[in-house]
Amino acid sequence: MRLSDTGRVEAFSDSVFAIVITLLVLDLYDHDVRPGDLASDLLARWPAYAAFVVSFVYVGVIWLNHHALFRRIHRMDGGLLWINLAILFSTVIVPFPTSVLGDAVAEGGGTDDQRVAVVLYALVAAVMSAPWWGVFSYLCHHPELLEPGVPTGYLRAQRIRPLTGLVLYVVCGVGGWFVGPAFGMACIAVVILYHALTSEGLREGPAGRLLGAFRR
Amino acid sequence: MRLSDTGRVEAFSDSVFAIVITLLVLDLYDHDVRPGDLASDLLARWPAYAAFVVSFVYVGVIWLNHHALFRRIHRMDGGLLWINLAILFSTVIVPFPTSVLGDAVAEGGGTDDQRVAVVLYALVAAVMSAPWWGVFSYLCHHPELLEPGVPTGYLRAQRIRPLTGLVLYVVCGVGGWFVGPAFGMACIAVVILYHALTSEGLREGPAGRLLGAFRR
Amino acid sequence: MRLSDTGRVEAFSDSVFAIVITLLVLDLYDHDVRPGDLASDLLARWPAYAAFVVSFVYVGVIWLNHHALFRRIHRMDGGLLWINLAILFSTVIVPFPTSVLGDAVAEGGGTDDQRVAVVLYALVAAVMSAPWWGVFSYLCHHPELLEPGVPTGYLRAQRIRPLTGLVLYVVCGVGGWFVGPAFGMACIAVVILYHALTSEGLREGPAGRLLGAFRR
Amino acid sequence: MRLSDTGRVEAFSDSVFAIVITLLVLDLYDHDVRPGDLASDLLARWPAYAAFVVSFVYVGVIWLNHHALFRRIHRMDGGLLWINLAILFSTVIVPFPTSVLGDAVAEGGGTDDQRVAVVLYALVAAVMSAPWWGVFSYLCHHPELLEPGVPTGYLRAQRIRPLTGLVLYVVCGVGGWFVGPAFGMACIAVVILYHALTSEGLREGPAGRLLGAFRR
Repeated sequence: MRLSDTGRVEAFSDSVFAIVITLLVLDLYDHDVRPGDLASDLLARWPAYAAFVVSFVYVGVIWLNHHALFRRIHRMDGGLLWINLAILFSTVIVPFPTSVLGDAVAEGGGTDDQRVAVVLYALVAAVMSAPWWGVFSYLCHHPELLEPGVPTGYLRAQRIRPLTGLVLYVVCGVGGWFVGPAFGMACIAVVILYHALTSEGLREGPAGRLLGAFRR
Repeated sequence: MRLSDTGRVEAFSDSVFAIVITLLVLDLYDHDVRPGDLASDLLARWPAYAAFVVSFVYVGVIWLNHHALFRRIHRMDGGLLWINLAILFSTVIVPFPTSVLGDAVAEGGGTDDQRVAVVLYALVAAVMSAPWWGVFSYLCHHPELLEPGVPTGYLRAQRIRPLTGLVLYVVCGVGGWFVGPAFGMACIAVVILYHALTSEGLREGPAGRLLGAFRR
Repeated sequence: MRLSDTGRVEAFSDSVFAIVITLLVLDLYDHDVRPGDLASDLLARWPAYAAFVVSFVYVGVIWLNHHALFRRIHRMDGGLLWINLAILFSTVIVPFPTSVLGDAVAEGGGTDDQRVAVVLYALVAAVMSAPWWGVFSYLCHHPELLEPGVPTGYLRAQRIRPLTGLVLYVVCGVGGWFVGPAFGMACIAVVILYHALTSEGLREGPAGRLLGAFRR
Repeated sequence: MRLSDTGRVEAFSDSVFAIVITLLVLDLYDHDVRPGDLASDLLARWPAYAAFVVSFVYVGVIWLNHHALFRRIHRMDGGLLWINLAILFSTVIVPFPTSVLGDAVAEGGGTDDQRVAVVLYALVAAVMSAPWWGVFSYLCHHPELLEPGVPTGYLRAQRIRPLTGLVLYVVCGVGGWFVGPAFGMACIAVVILYHALTSEGLREGPAGRLLGAFRR
């Protein structure tokens, strides 16, 4: 027995998501703690923890979305393989703005550095929406790749979500720059929550129904 | 052939466990060794090795418990996906207190730092029990997600274990703070051993029977 | 149900590719940013980003090629296991020249260091072609390992690609040394693109047809 | 469809092996290169490359052996799960002595440090043999866990290999201490080669037959 083509792509993607979600922890600590200052140093690094939580949820949501999408894909072609690589690319870079953001806030980089870091995070998040728009569009034009019984309207409806995300993340970046880094980061967290709430994998369970109530 | 929903969640979770258990090794060494002092430097870092062993066993036990639980789950819903992400979140952070603890003891951080590090470890361990309580409670209310033939009493009985763990880890943290870091760490190791002994995956083999003898 | 021999080798290889592709991100940032200089520091590190993108695509292309090859393999033998380990070995080292290259350009290492870094990258890329030549040759002599229906001419044709790659990468290294590091790096990117275009996994979809048009 | 118990243990173990084999690369480079010295710095770190190659082959051989063993296991019990965790534990620590050894030789740690590093590597390698002896012994007493048709003599014969390894690695450590680090490291490489030659996964292909000729 061996995994089908789709199965192997799913397994590869899952490995990448798993590694990204785990690598994030490497930024939680900072080895240069002065003796005697551990408690205060740990507390001072709370922005790195906040960035870690946001990015963990973000990658988790990407995984849920990927999971929900691939359940509907029956077979892969070359175009889909490349779009999937683009999705992985955009996921793999998440630890980078996370780390920059955590450091900028925790290590007293000043408001200027923090604004730069929030804009970088928002920019990366916006860029991450592009391949998701791509995959839904591609599948719209290649319904033969889908599992039988997937309604044609499904993909068209899904395409709106990454576009919304892209626009909202740009707004977050602008807000972070002009209003302040804390405001920008809060906006980003809200947009990630929006993606979590609308990720298809949530529709089924009671949590989904609960969250669905907020959505209406 | 492709993995079922449950299969893909298991595979993703296993990848995360595998990465966490392997990342722990990155803290074993410290590149700033003075020439000629390698032997004494290696020996002086024994607390980092002890923390590594404890955390390795801890993640291993989590994996065994996850394994035992998922064998009883027939299908996933949205709520279960999110609780599983919470379990992964709590596992992913294990290297953080491990590293802090190893460094605090090995690099002569003084008793104050060491007590902080033990309390952090106990706190993280206590927090890690919460999603396990959540998953057993959730499944109690959704028996339709279970494999046929799983006795209803099983989940109710399992729910007690994370609650016990949570209380005991808090006790460990308090003990580590007031009695001393070595005492706190020893308590934590005992609680992890308790979880190992009661992990369902152990019931079957001779090791399980041996360990079961201690349990009675 | 368990994975077949081929399935387990694929899964192991995919994990390695997934980790390599994700580890590349660790080099994107540099923790020693002076307060207030975040924006300029981030911009100054663009060569590390370029090296990251090239290496990400490179490992992605290797994965596509591996994927396309293993779909044609019916069962493994000992020789194939070892050749596969050699392929993994050559992939695992990709982050090393990537990091050296990014640092040499970003941190003002002077043209000398940059030429060394480009030559190192080209050398590693050339060395990476060898096990691919090996695997195609080995399978030519062991058609019994192939899936039924794989045309005998397929492997013979494939063998030319790693040889071409090897020669071209050496040319890139020589060009990087004598003409300049930017020229060498551009050549390497072109050769990686060549491998992407000719990777069998691309033949099927519209992207493949589009790219195929360039190939003719 | 989901992976069987054995399948999930194999997948988890494979992920750990894949991560260990890839993490080794993180030690290849050293970010503190003085501008203009890249070429000489890269060359001076050859011992780290040698240690990397030896450890890569070592983990590869462990994977081959694990692979060959698990093909013969029909189902898991609790004891086997724990012994497998011990095998993973001993594999996960490989990057530690690898890194210590590479640094000790490359950074001019003097002969004393180098002897310490070789002894550490030999010690870890010896310790790694123990769980392999354990798994073969355990299966000797639990033939019901094996696939039908596995000859009873097979496990008894296999048990000798880790014992031989343990003794030989201790000899390597002693040789490294009294004769010199280079001698010790060469001995270790020979013992790893011995394990590669006798790993069951090699028996089948032509490479196995070739290597088998040396064995006789």
